[in-house]
Amino acid sequence: MKVELVALTHFVDYEDNPLFGDGCVVVGGAEDVIEDAGRLCYGGESAGSQEEQARFIGARIAQGHESILEHASATFLIDGISRACMAQLTRHRLSSFSVRSQRYCDESDADYVVPPALIGCDDGDAELLFRATASHAIDVYRQLVDRGVRKEDARFILPEATATKMMMTCNFREWRHVIRLRCDKAAQWEIRAVAMEVLRQLHKVAPAVFADLWGMYGG
Amino acid sequence: MKVELVALTHFVDYEDNPLFGDGCVVVGGAEDVIEDAGRLCYGGESAGSQEEQARFIGARIAQGHESILEHASATFLIDGISRACMAQLTRHRLSSFSVRSQRYCDESDADYVVPPALIGCDDGDAELLFRATASHAIDVYRQLVDRGVRKEDARFILPEATATKMMMTCNFREWRHVIRLRCDKAAQWEIRAVAMEVLRQLHKVAPAVFADLWGMYGG
Amino acid sequence: MKVELVALTHFVDYEDNPLFGDGCVVVGGAEDVIEDAGRLCYGGESAGSQEEQARFIGARIAQGHESILEHASATFLIDGISRACMAQLTRHRLSSFSVRSQRYCDESDADYVVPPALIGCDDGDAELLFRATASHAIDVYRQLVDRGVRKEDARFILPEATATKMMMTCNFREWRHVIRLRCDKAAQWEIRAVAMEVLRQLHKVAPAVFADLWGMYGG
Amino acid sequence: MKVELVALTHFVDYEDNPLFGDGCVVVGGAEDVIEDAGRLCYGGESAGSQEEQARFIGARIAQGHESILEHASATFLIDGISRACMAQLTRHRLSSFSVRSQRYCDESDADYVVPPALIGCDDGDAELLFRATASHAIDVYRQLVDRGVRKEDARFILPEATATKMMMTCNFREWRHVIRLRCDKAAQWEIRAVAMEVLRQLHKVAPAVFADLWGMYGG
Repeated sequence: MKVELVALTHFVDYEDNPLFGDGCVVVGGAEDVIEDAGRLCYGGESAGSQEEQARFIGARIAQGHESILEHASATFLIDGISRACMAQLTRHRLSSFSVRSQRYCDESDADYVVPPALIGCDDGDAELLFRATASHAIDVYRQLVDRGVRKEDARFILPEATATKMMMTCNFREWRHVIRLRCDKAAQWEIRAVAMEVLRQLHKVAPAVFADLWGMYGG
Repeated sequence: MKVELVALTHFVDYEDNPLFGDGCVVVGGAEDVIEDAGRLCYGGESAGSQEEQARFIGARIAQGHESILEHASATFLIDGISRACMAQLTRHRLSSFSVRSQRYCDESDADYVVPPALIGCDDGDAELLFRATASHAIDVYRQLVDRGVRKEDARFILPEATATKMMMTCNFREWRHVIRLRCDKAAQWEIRAVAMEVLRQLHKVAPAVFADLWGMYGG
Repeated sequence: MKVELVALTHFVDYEDNPLFGDGCVVVGGAEDVIEDAGRLCYGGESAGSQEEQARFIGARIAQGHESILEHASATFLIDGISRACMAQLTRHRLSSFSVRSQRYCDESDADYVVPPALIGCDDGDAELLFRATASHAIDVYRQLVDRGVRKEDARFILPEATATKMMMTCNFREWRHVIRLRCDKAAQWEIRAVAMEVLRQLHKVAPAVFADLWGMYGG
Repeated sequence: MKVELVALTHFVDYEDNPLFGDGCVVVGGAEDVIEDAGRLCYGGESAGSQEEQARFIGARIAQGHESILEHASATFLIDGISRACMAQLTRHRLSSFSVRSQRYCDESDADYVVPPALIGCDDGDAELLFRATASHAIDVYRQLVDRGVRKEDARFILPEATATKMMMTCNFREWRHVIRLRCDKAAQWEIRAVAMEVLRQLHKVAPAVFADLWGMYGG
């Protein structure tokens, strides 16, 4: 499994200058946007210091004023998770998704995810049985496609373990919600591993916004 | 596959009467609510006749004023669709879903969906191969559960064809969106069959709201 | 201010019978839909008794499984609130709104809302000053419209106190969220009065869903 | 009125390096994220050239595959619009808002917006009447606050013309929707001016995504 931050909100200065290529320059990070949005509500202005900013953002979160976190978003590339895990992730309806399409892509060389609990379980028999069955299913997929069955129909035989790839974007308020639900011990191991890695990287780029959650689940 | 309307918005008269059981009586249908909401925007009142109501609602839709359709919702029980189709349906993020949980439910007796294109294809060989492989996968699921593997892990071996069951609720504006996308000939056969059946039943209970779509895809 | 439940989800039996008018008959209330949706997730069936249903729904809410509440919706007609209160209500983005349009409707006879704190305050002077100023503004609106100014422009002079009328629809999960935020003592008096009345009526028609909130804010 | 792009999604390379400050470096713009997301769905990879990227994104939009646009967001600071215009903007429910709070901020020195149609209309009398009435209302607000009335109540006397300030964030798909609705000639002049300025700046930083709309409304 690979979980990797690929896009992030930055504070920009828009330049109305025909000589200037993309029209704006990055002048700050996601937390600068969030602080400014929060100060605006109360008629104040940015304090200027990193410490004051972290304190201000922490206080808003503690107070439940989380709407200001919606001004920053982060996108993760999530690769090598099972379709079962993908189905859980895509239930988060305030998120945005782009998923490898099994209607258009050929899955003849698809990989699959083995649940860790199977590894070594029952003298290795369970794992062997699982691997043989999954490999056979992918082989049958290949045969069906070879016989002219459409990919969108052949995929019906693929196991839920089949590996997939997606991009997922949430604003910070929604990432906090996803993390709270999915880093919880009631979550399944796979989505939990995704959420833990998301938290680890987000905490690095926006420490004030994710400090409390990092304290709870990280480290 | 079974697609069945199980819940619907009704116009009610709230009675503040301790003798009166559930607090309200049904006095009209979903389209009465929609007409009233629409008239309110322009400072008007319900015309009283069914024909005037249908004409008013049709005119709002033609004009793009679809927000009034959000005041009515409908819930469908959708049973016997594949997990592949379920994954497509749950991508509609303005909808509400309750899905049979493969983490909690035992799928040892699960059924599976055979894509129609496989039936009879290649002298019946493709169908036989598909059925044998799907049955075997479900059998392996059973064996894994018997060996003490958790259901949430054993399900990784189940095929995407595995049948599932869900309730899906949308407001009428969102149902119109789902129908337009999923009754389209670019949609896959299974979700298209679901959408066609939803349209057929909704057109019966709210003819003015679904008349144009029924004209396009129904009949 | 008038807050009145005008539409509600009902459990229906769809009848595919050409002789049967609107295509479905009401066979139960909103909580029957919610129970069925919840049971479906765990592979169970409705218990049949009202007590069991209330216990089941209460347990799901206590556990945080609130998504099943999204299958039921309720619509309220809210009349005689200020535009200031309307602006607060329409910030609830998971809700649906139809609001009397000040671009299309003539507000020459508009009413206005006087904040209770003004009544009697400062020997009545504050109230008199407020009423005189509000009446004058509405009078100026009338003069502008008479001079040919478009209603959408003339309304710029109307006070935020100007009374308006709207329909607001939420599913039960979202109503619970709105109630928790707006029945809180930190909420402004006007939106709080709306939320309290919504809770009172919803608790009457769906006691199991709103029991805990009624215990907190009602009575 | 001031409308200014203040935050934007950038393509980043996450660096897991304790020596590296904010954890990621900007390696591309919003359209790079969108192209990658789109390619992922079909199992392809970025073409590398700007022209190919623009062609690819344009083709996805033309085809209706707009979900990939959700991976990029932009935030605008909108200052000096009327509360009437703010009420229209905040009706876009897929957007995120932070608005200057009239419950917490003192509006004694508030400015107000004069509809352009009033300027010069009726020998200037309409404008004079409007200005006198608006100024008087703000003066009464000040008097009420001086008498000890809470700001949240005093603001009931403020005109809808009262100037306000907000931050508004949308993903690119939603900005396209807002632009289509609000650059339309049916939109009111004020929100139309906001939308035109948003389009102008977004077209500068993401020309492939907004080319078609710029062709329709810009220039």
